[in-house]
Amino acid sequence: MPHNELRKDYLLDRWVVIATERGRRPTDFIKGERAAAKTSTCPFCPGNEHMTPPALLVYVESEGKIEKTRDEDGFRHKNWVVRCFPNLFPAFSPPQETPSRRKIVKVHDLALIDAVGHHEVLVESPNHDEHPSDARLPQLVNVINAYLDRLGELSKKPYVRYVSIFRNHGLEAGASLSHAHSQIIATPFTPKIVREELIASRRYWRENGSCIFCKIMEKEMESPRFIMENQHFLVFAPYASINPLEFWVFPKKHEASPIKLSEEERKSFAETLKASLGALKNLLNDPPYNFGFHIAMEKASRPYYHWHLEVYPKLAIWAGFEKSTGMYINTVSPETAAESLRKAISP
Amino acid sequence: MPHNELRKDYLLDRWVVIATERGRRPTDFIKGERAAAKTSTCPFCPGNEHMTPPALLVYVESEGKIEKTRDEDGFRHKNWVVRCFPNLFPAFSPPQETPSRRKIVKVHDLALIDAVGHHEVLVESPNHDEHPSDARLPQLVNVINAYLDRLGELSKKPYVRYVSIFRNHGLEAGASLSHAHSQIIATPFTPKIVREELIASRRYWRENGSCIFCKIMEKEMESPRFIMENQHFLVFAPYASINPLEFWVFPKKHEASPIKLSEEERKSFAETLKASLGALKNLLNDPPYNFGFHIAMEKASRPYYHWHLEVYPKLAIWAGFEKSTGMYINTVSPETAAESLRKAISP
Repeated sequence: MPHNELRKDYLLDRWVVIATERGRRPTDFIKGERAAAKTSTCPFCPGNEHMTPPALLVYVESEGKIEKTRDEDGFRHKNWVVRCFPNLFPAFSPPQETPSRRKIVKVHDLALIDAVGHHEVLVESPNHDEHPSDARLPQLVNVINAYLDRLGELSKKPYVRYVSIFRNHGLEAGASLSHAHSQIIATPFTPKIVREELIASRRYWRENGSCIFCKIMEKEMESPRFIMENQHFLVFAPYASINPLEFWVFPKKHEASPIKLSEEERKSFAETLKASLGALKNLLNDPPYNFGFHIAMEKASRPYYHWHLEVYPKLAIWAGFEKSTGMYINTVSPETAAESLRKAISP
Repeated sequence: MPHNELRKDYLLDRWVVIATERGRRPTDFIKGERAAAKTSTCPFCPGNEHMTPPALLVYVESEGKIEKTRDEDGFRHKNWVVRCFPNLFPAFSPPQETPSRRKIVKVHDLALIDAVGHHEVLVESPNHDEHPSDARLPQLVNVINAYLDRLGELSKKPYVRYVSIFRNHGLEAGASLSHAHSQIIATPFTPKIVREELIASRRYWRENGSCIFCKIMEKEMESPRFIMENQHFLVFAPYASINPLEFWVFPKKHEASPIKLSEEERKSFAETLKASLGALKNLLNDPPYNFGFHIAMEKASRPYYHWHLEVYPKLAIWAGFEKSTGMYINTVSPETAAESLRKAISP
């Protein structure tokens, strides 16, 4: 019986045991029926716009063209294709007139800062079920454009240091509403994982004069973890995946942020998302998953950071071991995951 | 609307938003029915010992006394009160004759080490449902003794650097078998979270000449996060809890490891576990949870590390934001959690 491998992430001090002895194949994760979110009136469906706060950004289609606008106080736009509005229960909220604790303060020796920032919901389509794997490509381009519009706006706020764009799909992955939507959270400092990536990639750049992510891509393009590529994007299962069937989407062009993606690149990104998320859906009967963008916001990081998207299928439970140690056990090797996903891509 | 607080852990670079705006009370987490693990023949129940590997440690009760023994190849002890055996699907396994990669190696620039170590299951009682909150105290003392016996044995192995003792309760918390049991994993290096605690507590000790955990306890004893205490233990909700209703159990005596707990302290620890886990059970109708010991193994850490147990109720889902940023959102403040748990403790 050979030993399981204990693998370290490319950059992070994060280790995972690739423990495939239980002999689980990716398809063992298929579930017949999944718990569905409560079905009542969907506040994200067309006609129910009054159930949400006024949109900060609305794309309205008119004569085949997309117009960008926003709702005003009592008014809600109809005929929208994408809507973005403040979360009704924000984890982070904008600064107010009362002075807020904007720097880390110590209260009885305990560190604290006010959760100043933004927390928004981005409804991806008027069609309740139009998830990225099923969406028409032009609609997916609208969603990407809306992500980048909000990223641009939020980046300008003086109190915002990071913008996290993420998506929860399925009740088991934390999506309490099933209408296709993403969330955007702007935070007052760079979160831990991205900060650790920044530190590690800066160190590599100082020592080698190049981007470590570009080098990782070069290797993974030829490795058994390769999943797909097109002109502008590469998809692979990361070497030290901590989730079964995890995959990462990287732009081939070195950029720290997606903010300047060209029209052609946005279309290519949409195709990549549709194909890779579609493969996951095909393979495992629409499993729950999360994805999150990793982006660098500061100019200084441009030479060494490389934005990307990480997709985490929710197929296992992190339990006492993972939570108390920060070490992970993954029962599907990234090589097997990549092979299964490669085969599940629709031609 | 006041800002949510963004709090930092005592030691770790780990931040959590205490986002109580959704107005969830602890009791909102009560579920009527919980998914149950599949009920078929339980391999951990008495009479089914042949379904598991030979036990490495068995406590057999005979004339009111506990005898310590082990199973041999074809033989399984009956009339046991606690049994510990190798996990049938181990994530970590002992070194073999073939040379294993025991130091971190680089393969194509990717870091790797063999998952050398141990992975054991500790059945806590012959009674299927005898979880710590319900167990008789003498039985709970048996369980603690067995934890410490295995910790002692595994610590002696030259290839073991850390021993993680943890418990998963309930299907949603990753317990695939419902018979009361814990797991023990011995690893070839100190896992990330414990390592970060060691680094931070060593720094504090060098600067202040004292144990930071002792200081935390002193403060939390008087804080609104206090839950309970007895002669030897203190239970409180940590300031930057990342899980709703999370609590930590600390020994009052400064020790880096529980290995030398006296008989009286073990009894006190059993009482503390029963009372605090019982409060959680009373409050939320037996919710799923995980717990894990935090222990220092190296002699050098004795002056500055303080062993403890962390309990993580599984009431929320970490989704795209948490997974892609390493920043957390907790909808129940630790102060509210502590108040609810205090009231739920059986007199």
